[in-house]
Amino acid sequence: MGFLDRVQAAMEKNNSLLCVGLDPSPERFPASIQAMEKPIFEFNKAIIDATADLVCSYKPQAAYYHACGAEDQLAMTIDYIRTQYPDIPVILDSKRGDIGSTASQYAIEAFERYQADAVTVNPYMGIDTIEPFSSYADKGTVVLCRTSNPGAAAIQNLLVQQDSSVENGNTAMLYEVIARMCKEQWNGNNNILLVVGATNPTELKRIREITGDMTFLVPGLGAQGGDVEATVKNGLNSEGKGIIVNSSRGIIYASGGDDFAEAARNAAVKLRDQVNLYR
Amino acid sequence: MGFLDRVQAAMEKNNSLLCVGLDPSPERFPASIQAMEKPIFEFNKAIIDATADLVCSYKPQAAYYHACGAEDQLAMTIDYIRTQYPDIPVILDSKRGDIGSTASQYAIEAFERYQADAVTVNPYMGIDTIEPFSSYADKGTVVLCRTSNPGAAAIQNLLVQQDSSVENGNTAMLYEVIARMCKEQWNGNNNILLVVGATNPTELKRIREITGDMTFLVPGLGAQGGDVEATVKNGLNSEGKGIIVNSSRGIIYASGGDDFAEAARNAAVKLRDQVNLYR
Repeated sequence: MGFLDRVQAAMEKNNSLLCVGLDPSPERFPASIQAMEKPIFEFNKAIIDATADLVCSYKPQAAYYHACGAEDQLAMTIDYIRTQYPDIPVILDSKRGDIGSTASQYAIEAFERYQADAVTVNPYMGIDTIEPFSSYADKGTVVLCRTSNPGAAAIQNLLVQQDSSVENGNTAMLYEVIARMCKEQWNGNNNILLVVGATNPTELKRIREITGDMTFLVPGLGAQGGDVEATVKNGLNSEGKGIIVNSSRGIIYASGGDDFAEAARNAAVKLRDQVNLYR
Repeated sequence: MGFLDRVQAAMEKNNSLLCVGLDPSPERFPASIQAMEKPIFEFNKAIIDATADLVCSYKPQAAYYHACGAEDQLAMTIDYIRTQYPDIPVILDSKRGDIGSTASQYAIEAFERYQADAVTVNPYMGIDTIEPFSSYADKGTVVLCRTSNPGAAAIQNLLVQQDSSVENGNTAMLYEVIARMCKEQWNGNNNILLVVGATNPTELKRIREITGDMTFLVPGLGAQGGDVEATVKNGLNSEGKGIIVNSSRGIIYASGGDDFAEAARNAAVKLRDQVNLYR
């Protein structure tokens, strides 16, 4: 079963569009966890056990593991999800991108070393940096399109001159061009997704228009402040599907105390239900 | 001493603009190296010992270490250069890029965990994904501008509508816009460099016009087939400086036999001298 089918099955099983981001900052863990031999894994394990019936996917953020040399705990975390909750796919958020021969190494990292089900990638270097990932037909390749950070617009909203594929007017923003490439040129294996931030619902709507029923990974709710109603209404495709709503810090750090897992569960229930209100 | 000054000093000491890329594929090592306990480190060490008087920098490519879980050997490699050849700076080629809080983690990875002297970063997400790196004033931040891979043009050569900062005509290519942002907006610490492929010397010349005396990391000679004379003549700034010429596979795999280090030295001498012919 391919990645998109697996996500869809998890969405239905748990009645949830929620993805929980696993961005571990050990200094934010309760002291009891910090004292453990594998604190990152233990923290993640507690979060996963508390939320696995509430989510459609998990998304570990590679940077947090690389910063402190915890690749082993990243592998343990993904392996734990795969063995204990095999219905829940894992998106490795590492935003890779490089020339083809190097991108192939990053694909091996994501899909063979860590056995992730999907990976985030950066489109700036073009199709030959995407294909080494998307050629794994059963895996998901999640391309950055319109990201949620404040500086994104200065690049992603640059006005690009018309090419034959742009319908409305003679220009399109760069993120629209990327969305269209993903839809029309890069999606031969039907396993491309797009990262579309929740911080600008109008742009989310525009990308939905361009890409039809493609699936979006939508960060920016929670800690980054996106609007749930506008995000869900503008993001869903015509079948009422097609968005994976990510929250990381807003859930995993809902409490800094020993009740962090319970607090994470409560925050996940709340966001899941908020999202479902507008489906 | 900042990164650019350190590179310049190494260029002068070794009379070389050459950077050797350390992209280890263990299956390409001679059997005698493959049999060792830390084959990647041993391979790199032999290459480094054979070339350290011929280069201005080394550039380990992170993907090759991540693919096989060899972060320890990446750290050992950089540490070996730092301790044995402290005059030669190290560029970690990992093409990172993410929202600010995450980019900070990647900066910790590059500059604190590995103690690299510079890191490559992707500009697609904008200035707040660059600043966490460039705020390390003594380190180099090497921004992808015009890359050497075949698919790059479809994105990087998109025609962007004029904004007030573009002089010639009413459009500029995306890579020109990125070059101008690097020059005019992102270089407050004077530690930004640009990745500019050798595969299109005309574009190299254009980026030189836009960026004045900034320094470029130029991949694409050797295995990727760029033209040495055109690259050097179009790349140098008005002071006859400003390019770091990278070759990876063309040097480190010059021979697949037990003479690989000697062959790498010969290939490095040859490319260094070819480059120097046109300085």
